[in-house]
Amino acid sequence: MPYLVDGLQYANWSEKVFRQMRAGEVDAVHVTIAYHEMFRETVARIEEWNRWFETYPDLIVQARTGADVRRAQKDGRTAIIFGAQTPAPIEDDIGLVEILHTLGLRFMQLTYNNQSLLATGCYEAEDTGLTRMGREVVAEMNRVGLVVDMSHSAERSTLDAIAHSTRPIAITHANPHSWHPAKRNKSDTVLKALAQSGGMLGFSLYPHHLKGGSACTLTDFCEAIARTADLMGAENLGIGSDLCQDQPDSVVEWMRVGRWTKQIDYGEGSAAAPGFPPQPEFFKDNRDLEGIAAGLREVGFSLDEVSGIMGDNWLRFFDENFGPAT
Amino acid sequence: MPYLVDGLQYANWSEKVFRQMRAGEVDAVHVTIAYHEMFRETVARIEEWNRWFETYPDLIVQARTGADVRRAQKDGRTAIIFGAQTPAPIEDDIGLVEILHTLGLRFMQLTYNNQSLLATGCYEAEDTGLTRMGREVVAEMNRVGLVVDMSHSAERSTLDAIAHSTRPIAITHANPHSWHPAKRNKSDTVLKALAQSGGMLGFSLYPHHLKGGSACTLTDFCEAIARTADLMGAENLGIGSDLCQDQPDSVVEWMRVGRWTKQIDYGEGSAAAPGFPPQPEFFKDNRDLEGIAAGLREVGFSLDEVSGIMGDNWLRFFDENFGPAT
Repeated sequence: MPYLVDGLQYANWSEKVFRQMRAGEVDAVHVTIAYHEMFRETVARIEEWNRWFETYPDLIVQARTGADVRRAQKDGRTAIIFGAQTPAPIEDDIGLVEILHTLGLRFMQLTYNNQSLLATGCYEAEDTGLTRMGREVVAEMNRVGLVVDMSHSAERSTLDAIAHSTRPIAITHANPHSWHPAKRNKSDTVLKALAQSGGMLGFSLYPHHLKGGSACTLTDFCEAIARTADLMGAENLGIGSDLCQDQPDSVVEWMRVGRWTKQIDYGEGSAAAPGFPPQPEFFKDNRDLEGIAAGLREVGFSLDEVSGIMGDNWLRFFDENFGPAT
Repeated sequence: MPYLVDGLQYANWSEKVFRQMRAGEVDAVHVTIAYHEMFRETVARIEEWNRWFETYPDLIVQARTGADVRRAQKDGRTAIIFGAQTPAPIEDDIGLVEILHTLGLRFMQLTYNNQSLLATGCYEAEDTGLTRMGREVVAEMNRVGLVVDMSHSAERSTLDAIAHSTRPIAITHANPHSWHPAKRNKSDTVLKALAQSGGMLGFSLYPHHLKGGSACTLTDFCEAIARTADLMGAENLGIGSDLCQDQPDSVVEWMRVGRWTKQIDYGEGSAAAPGFPPQPEFFKDNRDLEGIAAGLREVGFSLDEVSGIMGDNWLRFFDENFGPAT
């Protein structure tokens, strides 16, 4: 039986959302637990998740391995995989990489739009690549099995991470720049290097990453995936919907602004449209994930390729990259 | 093959100490990782241990279960089990119980001499038993499999913990008050209640807990164990040496004083003898543990009873109490 996996969500988690995951028969979701949260705040987010796991044991279960995802499917639960969108949770302390991996963190972005201690984000004017600490932290992430995620990173930093990492990296939620030239989308150079190293691209359904924005159709989206498969191979593609369901606009402001400025930074939005953009018609919540499979069939993918893109590719990637280096 | 387990040590950890553990064929040690350290400081101590595990993989390995101890013996390594001597690591946050259990904590004292948020320590004038938070935290410790340790607690608090806990508790390092009437040693009432609930007593080799102090002989020590076996049953007894090897006297001051006073509190010591007392002749380091087995045989214990006291009883207790409640 194929697996249905979403490579990134940051919903306003609730019983409603967890029930929609089950209604959509979603086997695993990589959930963002931290943006600008430092270590102790990230631990508080994990404590919240622990309470949800205790409260809704029939709906969700924490996953640390691919085997946990398989067990979740068998049990009829959705596997939850923790990730961080900035390296703030490790602060200035490389020892926190292993600590957070032990607590279940499996993805960590090296940057989020801005320069971090580790690398450069996609909104900076200058991209200096991996820093001294960045190279050390990537090696430590490789050692323990914490996946490097470069979704919000700048071009050179991303290429540096791919080259320096001894294990495949992921771009969990972004689209090809050639399809829609947003700062957050990735060049063909990056996408080719990613595929050659065995890395994964999760296609985003966040409107600012879509050609046509909220008006993007399922066919447009699936055709973009088909063209990217020609470049990268279908086996390196998945979905990373970036679903921010039920979030108030204060949350997109927190994502963009954190505590790094006292001004408002609109990021991909604008003063005229500062909030979350409306979702495309064909993807409102977890129950719509399966519909993408039909769209992929229509643009010519084989059944096997569709199973891969909808989840089996992510599951293979989890199997190979969530444990200690051998 | 029987197991050799020490139910508590707080050495100044080093390659030397780890090699002595191997020379002594010690299969498992419950190590104190925190006294007055709050959460973030405790995590820093775990980070140090993670580096030792990485640096000395042939000598030591972290254990989270009894099965891990069996594997360690098979591999010729000493299993290290984390514990905290105060509840400072969970601060005021019950959610940190599960977080620290995930990071490997398997024992936590509810108090250390003083009143804590959870219970009363053995040096307070008044003992009010488990607090409101204390009852909640014991239930949470029971749920996840974090063992309640009452070694430094006052009488009523200890009896309360035994009664309130749905799983057996431990007194990892203390001796019978009837043998040596130190404040830290335990009444027959406590020892009987402990045994009736399936709990464990680890016999301490810290001189202030010994009749005759540093001059205590192996025979004296083993006879005290024999008398306690008459009271509690040999199956509820183990060793918890409280070995503080190679520590400077500043460490015993930290244990006693933490940050709770600006004065010096001498605890079990005195102004004339403020430091660590000299170890008894028959127990200087991990290589001397096995010698206790011979002493136990001489005072009349059977071979099976000796194996139990030297480690198999602790291992059975680990098997039953380190995992989630069923």
